[in-house]
Amino acid sequence: MNASALIEGIKAGDTASLARAISVVENGDDGFEELLSEIHSLVGNAHRIGITGPPGAGKSMLSELITREYRSRDHRVAVVAVDPTSPYSGGALLGDRIRMESVALDPDVYIRSMASRGATGGLATTTLEVCDILDAFGFGRIIIETVGVGQNELAIAATADTSALILVPESGDGIQVLKAGVMEAVDLFVVNKSDRPGADRMVQEVQVMLGFRAGSALRNVKPHHGHQAASTEAEERSGNGWSVTVLLTSATKEEGIQQLVDVLEEHWTYLNQSGMLATRREARLERHVKEVVERTLRNALWQDSRGTAILNEGLDDVANGSASPYAVARRIVDGLELGAKK
Amino acid sequence: MNASALIEGIKAGDTASLARAISVVENGDDGFEELLSEIHSLVGNAHRIGITGPPGAGKSMLSELITREYRSRDHRVAVVAVDPTSPYSGGALLGDRIRMESVALDPDVYIRSMASRGATGGLATTTLEVCDILDAFGFGRIIIETVGVGQNELAIAATADTSALILVPESGDGIQVLKAGVMEAVDLFVVNKSDRPGADRMVQEVQVMLGFRAGSALRNVKPHHGHQAASTEAEERSGNGWSVTVLLTSATKEEGIQQLVDVLEEHWTYLNQSGMLATRREARLERHVKEVVERTLRNALWQDSRGTAILNEGLDDVANGSASPYAVARRIVDGLELGAKK
Repeated sequence: MNASALIEGIKAGDTASLARAISVVENGDDGFEELLSEIHSLVGNAHRIGITGPPGAGKSMLSELITREYRSRDHRVAVVAVDPTSPYSGGALLGDRIRMESVALDPDVYIRSMASRGATGGLATTTLEVCDILDAFGFGRIIIETVGVGQNELAIAATADTSALILVPESGDGIQVLKAGVMEAVDLFVVNKSDRPGADRMVQEVQVMLGFRAGSALRNVKPHHGHQAASTEAEERSGNGWSVTVLLTSATKEEGIQQLVDVLEEHWTYLNQSGMLATRREARLERHVKEVVERTLRNALWQDSRGTAILNEGLDDVANGSASPYAVARRIVDGLELGAKK
Repeated sequence: MNASALIEGIKAGDTASLARAISVVENGDDGFEELLSEIHSLVGNAHRIGITGPPGAGKSMLSELITREYRSRDHRVAVVAVDPTSPYSGGALLGDRIRMESVALDPDVYIRSMASRGATGGLATTTLEVCDILDAFGFGRIIIETVGVGQNELAIAATADTSALILVPESGDGIQVLKAGVMEAVDLFVVNKSDRPGADRMVQEVQVMLGFRAGSALRNVKPHHGHQAASTEAEERSGNGWSVTVLLTSATKEEGIQQLVDVLEEHWTYLNQSGMLATRREARLERHVKEVVERTLRNALWQDSRGTAILNEGLDDVANGSASPYAVARRIVDGLELGAKK
């Protein structure tokens, strides 16, 4: 890899360099951290929007419509479609971006699928780093679309500035999806497929969940009247100021999309004006540095031939009953003089 | 924690000690690795069976019926229900073991729910360690039930000796669930809800997928006629000898359960006689030791006050633009003299 050529390419707006740089980071190729280090000063302008939700909620179609709406407002948009449930390249599943055909040929739109095959560690970390490149390249809006609402997806959503959870009326009997950890991390709920039976009931269920959360964790709960046209309700977080909003959309009928983008922009303004953006990004940065440290250590650990030698010897001892896995682990940590010294 | 009292309790068959020991491991309480180290010599007799599948496939009911069938064959059974999508205690979701009421009061059945709240690292690692305790306690059959078919679930399934994937006729249009990585890791497919339309088609789709996989990765593909009563088909792995089987069951009608347990027992016999059990367990052990080493390092790293000090100073430098996250990570690794020395 010629890192400086890639960086020059990114600065010059060359899409081939962008694609190559993303691959370098995704694969953890030699020098990928130097590349990220070099572009770091260019990072920080993009509004990163996490779109999560269960399979079949219409996230991909919504992402396309949001992208189109952003384009009509003259933003350059990148979409990173992440499938944490796939250990392999996202070719088949999210790679199928045919549904995004209305925006795929727009030179100011960039679409990339990711799966968890990355060799370098957590998918959330790699997603953040890919977004850094897109950010440095100059995309003002980055949509991070993830399938699922589990812990991995939460970690990915936590790399965004704004998190939207997409639900459908059918999610109702799977109130499963609305777990505490997910609720806490969400800035905006979208009930998609609003034309289907049960949409209003789903909105109500989310509102009940929000009320429950408010009652248990927050002091002031006030109704919110900002987006009633799209059947909204909200919760005023005390000392915070953002009203978690519930929006209705229909991606197939292309309804509610402008309001959705309005709310995303409102949240962006709120994040900037309230200082919450800096707060969230500081927390994100701290997590990221820790993850990079752990990744560095992990990689160094198993590249050390002594570590492998102690491991293999130790496994024999475990097999013959003279050592436990924990004793062998301790031998490796001690033998490599790893482990923190106080 | 009084580790020796817990260990004595486990050896004496005291269920309260068992429950306490599991909690100690799940929470990563002080001394949990010593506890695991002490019981290590007792581990290795249980047949560990992974039951994975998408939400709503009827895994829980199948687990109950398998448990009952095993009980009728005089095996002691533990069920570990793992929800990797929940970052919080499994109270609400899998904690709802009411469905297992027909076996829950049997003193030779032990049921435990787990979520990914564990502080000590990966859920797969903790699941393996909890199973070690159950194994040491004397349960001969351990069912590890996980929701979902993603990477986390695969990692959990990889801690089992035998992996069964539960599908339903409705899984058909989500051929999503049958991704390469999942297919490779599965010893037995179960199409549950066999009375519903599309069950036979689902069986065929799995067979097509198995054929596809066989064609791409294996040399010999032969039909298998062992379990035709339950509509089976199979693939003979060359140089391996186990025929991946597709079974039909109906948990609600309690159909196909005996055949299912027959196949599980057949696989257990196969694993023992072929030497595959030793091979799989060696690989599992090696992974486990590596994970324990990484966990030890990770914990040591952030317990070191110097690491935190360098981190905080470095974050300021990142904020004012004089350093990248990667430079700060390098400072921490160097400052603590971590990282492998060649």
